Amino acid sequence: MTNYKTKSKVENRIHQIFGINGSLSVLKSNKYKIQSIDLLENGSVTSNINIKESLKKHSTQIHYSNRDTFYKKYGESRTQGIVVSFSDDIDKSLPSFKDIEGNYCLLIVDNVTDPQNFGQIIRTSECAGVDGIIIPERNSVGITDTVLQVSQGAFCNMPIYSVTNLNQTLSQLKEDEFWTIAVENGIDAKPWDKIDYKGKIAIIIGSEGQGIKPLVLKSCDFQATIPMQGETASLNVSAATAVVLFERLRQIL
Amino acid sequence: MTNYKTKSKVENRIHQIFGINGSLSVLKSNKYKIQSIDLLENGSVTSNINIKESLKKHSTQIHYSNRDTFYKKYGESRTQGIVVSFSDDIDKSLPSFKDIEGNYCLLIVDNVTDPQNFGQIIRTSECAGVDGIIIPERNSVGITDTVLQVSQGAFCNMPIYSVTNLNQTLSQLKEDEFWTIAVENGIDAKPWDKIDYKGKIAIIIGSEGQGIKPLVLKSCDFQATIPMQGETASLNVSAATAVVLFERLRQIL
Repeated sequence: MTNYKTKSKVENRIHQIFGINGSLSVLKSNKYKIQSIDLLENGSVTSNINIKESLKKHSTQIHYSNRDTFYKKYGESRTQGIVVSFSDDIDKSLPSFKDIEGNYCLLIVDNVTDPQNFGQIIRTSECAGVDGIIIPERNSVGITDTVLQVSQGAFCNMPIYSVTNLNQTLSQLKEDEFWTIAVENGIDAKPWDKIDYKGKIAIIIGSEGQGIKPLVLKSCDFQATIPMQGETASLNVSAATAVVLFERLRQIL
Repeated sequence: MTNYKTKSKVENRIHQIFGINGSLSVLKSNKYKIQSIDLLENGSVTSNINIKESLKKHSTQIHYSNRDTFYKKYGESRTQGIVVSFSDDIDKSLPSFKDIEGNYCLLIVDNVTDPQNFGQIIRTSECAGVDGIIIPERNSVGITDTVLQVSQGAFCNMPIYSVTNLNQTLSQLKEDEFWTIAVENGIDAKPWDKIDYKGKIAIIIGSEGQGIKPLVLKSCDFQATIPMQGETASLNVSAATAVVLFERLRQIL
């Protein structure tokens, strides 16, 4: 039985990210322990001014490889000639949000198992001004390197909280005066734009296959639905997330 | 030089789609010439009631394979035991929209070369009630099998028009009384929710790398921008499309 999604195993795992945008985010964030920076010798990345600037602080971790060695290790495409390995926990334990006031939005991602979708959700959340993402330790893809890569570095600027029990988390958030809103096509749901997203809110999204767990759904204050106009069943979960998060932004900007 | 994106070569190409949702859309649409339906013998798909119903009309094209043969041909995962091959043009020539009245939305997809993004855009467009998608024959990923697969069958219900010259197309649309709105982060851009999307409109989106071509951009009536809240550069193009299309839906519903 693989246990890779539990907190204890994720701690201090070494992650790898490639490409200019993702690498720059990691190097500039000063949040992670940089293990190594692999660069393609004479690759165009070495003349990128932002990369050059970011490398200054990490001169001892830099390693150049020639084309043969680099491509053998990382393949011929997609890395843009730079691969950064780094460690440290990316996900944190949930703090108290009691003293926070004003507009504040947590996104709870339940049951999402596709790394492309979770990566896109992190990226979209950062663009939409979400303050943190909560994931269950089980029933979630977890923080894999694909997730980090797809997020295009957005994970560096987005607190990600791992929790063991979503129902307990929802209770805690309610004590901390959050309204909880499930994005779900239920009977009690209101259209997504008829929900008030101002103040302290937690938005819960689930996967297309399984949706939000019934117990979690039951304890939410509101349900938001996005009415489908076509004959195809449903919006991809990361597209649905974008629609709801930017409707919130529209309301609070 | 590959020319696979030009209309003449795409005509009557054989496409392949797998999985229950996509296959059902193709079989139910009655729009395409079904070449073959490959089914995994005793696969769970063969007891799916919707699939069973759809197969009735196509009994002569059905072909069962045992596990070894099927997996050898299509791999072990992702097909859900069904692969449908079909032909006929998916993209059409642009008709006149002169006589159309009321809310009508065309989405013009310029420079998008990633099949995942284009597939998601087709899916999102159908969910958001878009009336048609326009793509340039060049500078676009074209209608590949990956695009169709990612769209989850949405392409069956979404007219896709191929055009040779986007500028001419925009002129034609203006003559047909469309307002044209570019989604672009320019100086003249208004926030995406401050644009009026009612009536006959064409929304133009471009890729993250290249954006919309300058000449195309110049001839648009409005520019819409989605203000980014975080430190990561930009929203994925399919997420940006979702945000704009559902803001339009919010305004017209």
